Amino acid sequence: MTFGARLQRAMVEHGPLCVGVDPHPALLKEWGLEDSAAGLSRFSDAVIEAATGRCAAVKPNAAFYERHGSAGIAVLERLLADCRDRGLLTILDAKRGDIGSTMRAYAEAFLVPGAPLEADSLTVSPYLGFGSLAPALDLAAEHGKGLFVLALTSNPEGAAVQHAIGTDGVPVARAIAAAAAAINAGQTPMGSVGLVVGATVGDAVSRLGIDLSAVNGPLLAPGVGAQGATPADVATVFGDARPTVLVNQSRGVLNAGPYAESLNSAILKAADAARADVGGPR
Amino acid sequence: MTFGARLQRAMVEHGPLCVGVDPHPALLKEWGLEDSAAGLSRFSDAVIEAATGRCAAVKPNAAFYERHGSAGIAVLERLLADCRDRGLLTILDAKRGDIGSTMRAYAEAFLVPGAPLEADSLTVSPYLGFGSLAPALDLAAEHGKGLFVLALTSNPEGAAVQHAIGTDGVPVARAIAAAAAAINAGQTPMGSVGLVVGATVGDAVSRLGIDLSAVNGPLLAPGVGAQGATPADVATVFGDARPTVLVNQSRGVLNAGPYAESLNSAILKAADAARADVGGPR
Repeated sequence: MTFGARLQRAMVEHGPLCVGVDPHPALLKEWGLEDSAAGLSRFSDAVIEAATGRCAAVKPNAAFYERHGSAGIAVLERLLADCRDRGLLTILDAKRGDIGSTMRAYAEAFLVPGAPLEADSLTVSPYLGFGSLAPALDLAAEHGKGLFVLALTSNPEGAAVQHAIGTDGVPVARAIAAAAAAINAGQTPMGSVGLVVGATVGDAVSRLGIDLSAVNGPLLAPGVGAQGATPADVATVFGDARPTVLVNQSRGVLNAGPYAESLNSAILKAADAARADVGGPR
Repeated sequence: MTFGARLQRAMVEHGPLCVGVDPHPALLKEWGLEDSAAGLSRFSDAVIEAATGRCAAVKPNAAFYERHGSAGIAVLERLLADCRDRGLLTILDAKRGDIGSTMRAYAEAFLVPGAPLEADSLTVSPYLGFGSLAPALDLAAEHGKGLFVLALTSNPEGAAVQHAIGTDGVPVARAIAAAAAAINAGQTPMGSVGLVVGATVGDAVSRLGIDLSAVNGPLLAPGVGAQGATPADVATVFGDARPTVLVNQSRGVLNAGPYAESLNSAILKAADAARADVGGPR
């Protein structure tokens, strides 16, 4: 079963919500935990326990594990293995990007069954060109894994690169969306090459001529709800592509911890809100 | 002492060569080593031993350590600590890039003294805009560390993003070079915000109107020598900026291993060639 198919099923079953696993030092403190590998471990366990069966996927943020070196990465390994055992889909948010054999090595690190850091999918960065991602696209397809390519991000500084016009007259973000669409074409229920598109990018999608409904892959959307975007904003940005949107919530949900009961209900509430905001897969 | 000053001193003393530490699975095999954390460890030890006192810096490639999960990252920790003890400068090639507190977390992981993965400098990717790197620029400046921002890479697919024209009429790679130049302005002997510029990009630097001699920071150049660029190519790409070029060699040198004698002499030869190709700091 492809990643696209597995994610679609999870979005139908649990609502189009992805819970970001972002153990910020400040958040660890709020939860009464140490900023250490042990603190990361207790945080991760609590979030995974609460997320299981209550949302479509979780998105661990590699940076916060790398802060603690190999001990932090060991916690990330256990988190990913735990999710696999539970059937909870993972998007490893690591924004990797390189060329040739190095790009392949990143894909081997995160997308090949049996790798210590095996995830279901990985975020990747296309500054070296969408074409540089080919080794990861190949390995992902081979192993039923997914990729989320940064396209149009929510931060204002992103426009300097993402809105720039390529020598063929096509804006960078539009070319990336079109390249993902070409790979996903014809796949049902949807392809496995997703995009990251901020829910707060306003009219940039239409202004740049990006056809998100043609992407036929998951659209990972930070910035919905607590982080700023209203349902009207979501309609403006995603339009007819809303059924493929996977809403990411991190702080908005994690602030409800550390106690299981309030964390569980915050996730269920966010999943309902995500369904209301984007509709979810049909 | 700033990273720029420390690197300049090392380039004067040992020649403008950086040895890439790229434990490719194929290379490990050629060296008679296992594709395992133990193999990584023996490979890393041998390269660091040979590089010490024979080149300006080493550039470990994070991807090949991440393939082995936390055990691989533990090897990378030891490698970085070993280089610190030896006074051998490190450029951790990890091409990280994110926004806000996540960008800060990556900088904390790699650029803060005492972090398990502390390096002297880090490669970063600006798909989210040069401005998104601010938290890393701040932390690097605070701790005397360096950054190498991807600007104009050697792979052909990179042009789709890097040659694109921003809404202000400035090509992406030129805007990035100008942003680095603004930060490095007035620093002596050079600033600590470097760029990655492939030696094989031909006339792209002049065609895009990029003024590399104004950057006043180290220019990390893959592709010189064995990988394709001739001294004439180097002159075309870097022009007057040649004294700040740090030539990277990976396979061209590593293929001489595993025996110390041939590895040592390959590094010395490459350092001489780098000095001949780019001149080195004055």
